[in-house]
Amino acid sequence: MTAELRLDGSLSTGTSALRVGVDVGGTKTDAVAVDGGGEVLGQLRLPTGFGADAVLASTVEAVSGLASQLSVDPRDFSSLGVGIPGSVDSGTGRVTHAVNLGLEGLELGAELTARLGVSAHVENDVNAAALGAYHLLAGARQSHSMAYLNLGTGLAAGLVLGGELWRGSRGNAGEIGHIPVDPSGPLCPCGQRGCLETLASGSAVTRQWPTDHPRPAQALFEAALAGDESAVEVWERLLVNVASAVRILVLTVDVDLVVIGGGISSLGTPLLGGVRSALDRWASSSPFLASLDLSGRVELVPPGFPAAAVGAALVGAADGTGHRWPR
Amino acid sequence: MTAELRLDGSLSTGTSALRVGVDVGGTKTDAVAVDGGGEVLGQLRLPTGFGADAVLASTVEAVSGLASQLSVDPRDFSSLGVGIPGSVDSGTGRVTHAVNLGLEGLELGAELTARLGVSAHVENDVNAAALGAYHLLAGARQSHSMAYLNLGTGLAAGLVLGGELWRGSRGNAGEIGHIPVDPSGPLCPCGQRGCLETLASGSAVTRQWPTDHPRPAQALFEAALAGDESAVEVWERLLVNVASAVRILVLTVDVDLVVIGGGISSLGTPLLGGVRSALDRWASSSPFLASLDLSGRVELVPPGFPAAAVGAALVGAADGTGHRWPR
Repeated sequence: MTAELRLDGSLSTGTSALRVGVDVGGTKTDAVAVDGGGEVLGQLRLPTGFGADAVLASTVEAVSGLASQLSVDPRDFSSLGVGIPGSVDSGTGRVTHAVNLGLEGLELGAELTARLGVSAHVENDVNAAALGAYHLLAGARQSHSMAYLNLGTGLAAGLVLGGELWRGSRGNAGEIGHIPVDPSGPLCPCGQRGCLETLASGSAVTRQWPTDHPRPAQALFEAALAGDESAVEVWERLLVNVASAVRILVLTVDVDLVVIGGGISSLGTPLLGGVRSALDRWASSSPFLASLDLSGRVELVPPGFPAAAVGAALVGAADGTGHRWPR
Repeated sequence: MTAELRLDGSLSTGTSALRVGVDVGGTKTDAVAVDGGGEVLGQLRLPTGFGADAVLASTVEAVSGLASQLSVDPRDFSSLGVGIPGSVDSGTGRVTHAVNLGLEGLELGAELTARLGVSAHVENDVNAAALGAYHLLAGARQSHSMAYLNLGTGLAAGLVLGGELWRGSRGNAGEIGHIPVDPSGPLCPCGQRGCLETLASGSAVTRQWPTDHPRPAQALFEAALAGDESAVEVWERLLVNVASAVRILVLTVDVDLVVIGGGISSLGTPLLGGVRSALDRWASSSPFLASLDLSGRVELVPPGFPAAAVGAALVGAADGTGHRWPR
């Protein structure tokens, strides 16, 4: 990287702090470059490949494309972080399983480091998004703890405690989708009954409200708005159980902020308003809950913000965000 | 403290590290002195007074009595920590409410510091016990995260994450007793329905199984063992819902260890075995739960170990155990 290719003044800390984050989703791969302060300087989207070779190729292509967009060499990036929808060992960069990507036992971190010449870190995508959302939203609220509640096909959370990612003792922190909340609820693929995920997730919506609409939760909301009784019932169940997830997160960890993201969060105001209403309803009959101000702690990820990619870039930072035990 | 009054060789780090911890319970006050390594060097029990003056007097008496037992002056203690069953501001030492002790808005830390001439810290008793149990049990297991699950009149947890107490953003971490787990469960005094505390706590036992026995849970267990059908039902409900609490703690925070304490934990093996059986039953029909090894993570506080007093002594340590935000 030569002098005339330097980025503009916004990159105050110099190119040594230029980091890349890649969010490898089931169908698309989002990549961003951020500066030392976490500002997004470049962004790129590609289709995701399936299987180890294709995922590696599309990730390398995303990083190279971003480098070329910014007129730098990939090796000029100070770090690369990758968010993966699956089970990963963030210490070694190994992907244990990522069913939707066709990955099993892939040394993704080592492979990417070798191919791109930049130190690569791998993180679960919900954890990465938690860090991205924390970076974007927590500062303004002076919050030091946050849960990111991902409403995708499933339901899971990522925790940022005291400004650091809390992965848990075995990497399973935030698996609240499999907490049963109704003994007479539906059977969950996990083998339990009435798990939160069976009531408040993309799969819960499509099971209860089958549709050809590309955005089933949007179709459900519109039908409920039009007065379809069955849709109203499923919609209300969704809201109440997202509210349940918020209550579980606050009562267990007492995070200052719960940020809702994932596909269903693109519903925007109707979702946020509905969840807050459910929380306020509970508070009106429980002084204890009222004292916790649950509804005041809930936010949505701003539409279009690439939380997981930005968070992946931050995970990949050399300062080692996130606890690694023993420390 | 003069040379001839020095303690024996077990106090290897010197008297500067001699700390006192006091657990102010509803009926009794337990005090311990610990050395720099957390070893208990002295122990004392007194009845607890009711109201600000009486609580202050019995706490001062406990600390003075312990000093005299160890032939030191109270001012020779390097720190004093006090565990209180109520809402406390651990930063300032103020007790906001402690209903069972008759305290409201008491500057307990400042008052004790003034009266005893030793720096006093105040902590919620469940948090203090969490730190005490962590100190005793986590090291041997090389655990860096633990939840202490207190089964007293109510149900609440304390969290130690990465070796430090996690109090939450507003001091409410671990309030899992008020997570509803059954929409058709009993009405809770908190205003919600089917809270964990209404199904798995001392008050849950006495509501469902009224008895004059001084240890109602023991009476319940004995009746269940003798084949009383109604007792069997209440006993099973207790076990299953303690298991639910363990599941909530592990799925949300992924603590490596869940240590059960509080009055009900004195039941010992029947309680631990019953909770582990419930967890194993769930695991047998859920590969996901089986992979988490919930039953392998559960332990009991050893009988007679003064977890809250020892933890209070550690909270009071000058090295500032526990997160205080912003840091």
